[in-house]
Amino acid sequence: MNSDTLRYRLLDAQLALAREQQRSVILLLTGHAVTHKGQVVNRLNHWLENRHTEVHALGPSSEEQARPYWWRYWRRIPDRGRIGIFIHGWYGDALFARAERRLSPGAFQDRLEQIRTFEAELAAEGVILLKLWTDIGRREQRRHLDELQQDPARAWQVGPGEWQRHGQHAVIEAIGRTLRADTEASHAPWQRLAFRAPGEQLNRVGRALLGRMEAPPEPPAVTLETLSDEAPGVPSLHRDDAAVEKRLDKAAYRERLAHGQARLASNAREIARRRIPVVIAFEGHDAAGKGGSIHRLTAALDARQYRVYRIGAPSDEELSRPWGWRFWRRLPVDGRIAIFDRSWYGRVLVERVEGLAGEAQWQRAYGEIRHFEQQLLEHGGVVIKLFLAIRKEEQLKRFEARAATPHKRHKLTDEDWRNRERWDDYQRAIDEMFARTHLPGAQWSLIACDDKRRARLAVLELVNQRLEARLASAI
Amino acid sequence: MNSDTLRYRLLDAQLALAREQQRSVILLLTGHAVTHKGQVVNRLNHWLENRHTEVHALGPSSEEQARPYWWRYWRRIPDRGRIGIFIHGWYGDALFARAERRLSPGAFQDRLEQIRTFEAELAAEGVILLKLWTDIGRREQRRHLDELQQDPARAWQVGPGEWQRHGQHAVIEAIGRTLRADTEASHAPWQRLAFRAPGEQLNRVGRALLGRMEAPPEPPAVTLETLSDEAPGVPSLHRDDAAVEKRLDKAAYRERLAHGQARLASNAREIARRRIPVVIAFEGHDAAGKGGSIHRLTAALDARQYRVYRIGAPSDEELSRPWGWRFWRRLPVDGRIAIFDRSWYGRVLVERVEGLAGEAQWQRAYGEIRHFEQQLLEHGGVVIKLFLAIRKEEQLKRFEARAATPHKRHKLTDEDWRNRERWDDYQRAIDEMFARTHLPGAQWSLIACDDKRRARLAVLELVNQRLEARLASAI
Repeated sequence: MNSDTLRYRLLDAQLALAREQQRSVILLLTGHAVTHKGQVVNRLNHWLENRHTEVHALGPSSEEQARPYWWRYWRRIPDRGRIGIFIHGWYGDALFARAERRLSPGAFQDRLEQIRTFEAELAAEGVILLKLWTDIGRREQRRHLDELQQDPARAWQVGPGEWQRHGQHAVIEAIGRTLRADTEASHAPWQRLAFRAPGEQLNRVGRALLGRMEAPPEPPAVTLETLSDEAPGVPSLHRDDAAVEKRLDKAAYRERLAHGQARLASNAREIARRRIPVVIAFEGHDAAGKGGSIHRLTAALDARQYRVYRIGAPSDEELSRPWGWRFWRRLPVDGRIAIFDRSWYGRVLVERVEGLAGEAQWQRAYGEIRHFEQQLLEHGGVVIKLFLAIRKEEQLKRFEARAATPHKRHKLTDEDWRNRERWDDYQRAIDEMFARTHLPGAQWSLIACDDKRRARLAVLELVNQRLEARLASAI
Repeated sequence: MNSDTLRYRLLDAQLALAREQQRSVILLLTGHAVTHKGQVVNRLNHWLENRHTEVHALGPSSEEQARPYWWRYWRRIPDRGRIGIFIHGWYGDALFARAERRLSPGAFQDRLEQIRTFEAELAAEGVILLKLWTDIGRREQRRHLDELQQDPARAWQVGPGEWQRHGQHAVIEAIGRTLRADTEASHAPWQRLAFRAPGEQLNRVGRALLGRMEAPPEPPAVTLETLSDEAPGVPSLHRDDAAVEKRLDKAAYRERLAHGQARLASNAREIARRRIPVVIAFEGHDAAGKGGSIHRLTAALDARQYRVYRIGAPSDEELSRPWGWRFWRRLPVDGRIAIFDRSWYGRVLVERVEGLAGEAQWQRAYGEIRHFEQQLLEHGGVVIKLFLAIRKEEQLKRFEARAATPHKRHKLTDEDWRNRERWDDYQRAIDEMFARTHLPGAQWSLIACDDKRRARLAVLELVNQRLEARLASAI
């Protein structure tokens, strides 16, 4: 294929992508220094219709550094129909951090595991991935560096970074081998490119990209680990459903509430001072009292420190990106608290039960959720997950009370009645959710809410305990 | 009205706002230090349904500092149905910068002018604005500061900043007077609040907010300055239409293109080094050659430095915010180049002619656009606006050629033919756009495009000239 033909076919493939708005493309180039990566990307970008292309090659901003590592890449995922080109990207971070020993061997392995998960998630959501490694021999790199440095028009391309990477050629070569071997996947394949002049290299990159874009989609396999029903500490509606206690009287409630809120205010100040991010996810039966419990929490918080997100239907900008994007974009900056009134668990609850997500999608979501929460924990965050449960009879009583009270009528919708009809399906989905996402550090807490007062105090107590446990840790 | 009634009415008003999704609310509190602003906002936020509320009180991040000043507030405008509460916000910036003499008297006046424009734009787009100034006498402030400092539970609230502002009480008082007088407007009124205990203050803030939310909308008056047809240098299709030159031969074109691109590459590197942001807006007749001209520019640029935005229909997230938001969000960070393939001028061209924007909206857009571009200039940016014009006969020839060429057919849509039917309406709208938005520093350049080669060279030449002029300036 000559280069004009190649160019037209690439352009056709890109226009089809933009027209259909079903998939997006990520092309990532990494590898040795001074291998014409920048030049090739420039020319490739010129070949393509650049209204549907974006190039990313920056280091992290302070806003990015103040959030979990993967936030910086989630925010850059191209929307459907577009091509995102990354120079180094997440591979450069891992490669150079390991070469410079800023990542221990163990941390490097963990990072590779995260990369596998990240790419599998993207691929499952229709992102076409292609990863290119640019090779160059040590002696050839040296010759090329000398050449560049002697050419006044191009000498600016060589800085201390390039020389440093030349000095580390053998190390980069070795790390690159591991990195490629450990992240090779049919949904995110590697291709190596021997060193060539930019024009020739461009043709090879173009052919590789065209090949990927024309290949049939191959979504990654989802492996669901088997469940042990008896995992210690996993809550279950089946077991706990009957936990109804005597109603708490008002005076005792008020006193304990004031005490818990004062404790929360002080914990939250310390959280801010130590710049620890906190994520609190509320799930629960309709009318279980999520709103009221959230209110009792926020009453104790400085309004500048927290934000409540109500998760409803996604916007079109959210729909045009992989599923996780809408939660990643709402992660709090360090020291702040994000409270989710319904959350990413909607995927395995309402979306599963109502058939809004296909089985493959919600099955895969368990792993995606574990990965997401793991990222928050590794960044030093606190992840609190609460399920507010009521019995079926209690829910009916509350629905009827809402319907009868003008001030509360807005809270009751047809959807609430519909959900109630599928009560048993929901119970099953909830129990499976507990079993599959009860992670160390991100455990589920099941709150019995038939008595509102006890429930609110229990939520407050739980949040306090979790914050205090985090504050007591040395990190 | 007792405080329970007030609370319920506020909640009702908020729920109506959230349900109707037509308008949003901005409540801003500023004024003297230690006047319970934080506490009042906390309690107010607790009164409201906090899933529809957001509180903003942070200093600018590095991403914000690397963009024009107002970017940090545009990104925080609440979407329709929500309430945004700002502590100090843009008034705090102006007030304290002036008190500490970081803003000269002239710069302070300019800032107040910007504030008036900003608020008028928001109000015109349905944002309900209310601004509260918290008063306190100097002696009372001193007493309150001493009290706080002696209370171990609250002493943390007093830092050097509070004492500094106490020392500047008279200055803040005087600046506050000017600031309020100069930014008072019926669509963005001020209310002063004498110092009171937090509970009482909360009631007064709540009443003020309720009053504003229940008041009938009062959009600001639009004043269109009269046009001088003969303003020097303003382009006009009417006059320049006939400017057809002899076609340029291919060899001469290639040589001049290579020369212009080399010059652009070097200018762009210097722009990056000096961290100057550049915005290039392309408008023009259908089939005038915008895409081709953009390609000839980007061929000379490093792909990491620029991004091309094609402006089509807005997303739903964009529709739920004031009109300008979708352009503010795309402003480049310092040192980068944003190329707009169609731009904010769509408001006074296609949206005007096709009736997608009402007359009041597009009339007001001239001023909004001037304000927007002015912000870019004041931040040190370069604003280049190009109109690519062809004659009506030439357009027909190109449409027919596109229809006949398989590779180009995707470029021709029914819309193109429809627009052509309204040729004269467009010509009028274009000439009025030139006349009303030909700003010093952000002039329009009209490029005759009947000969594609000459047109591409002219675009390149113009961009080079504008960049060189900016690089030659001392700032």
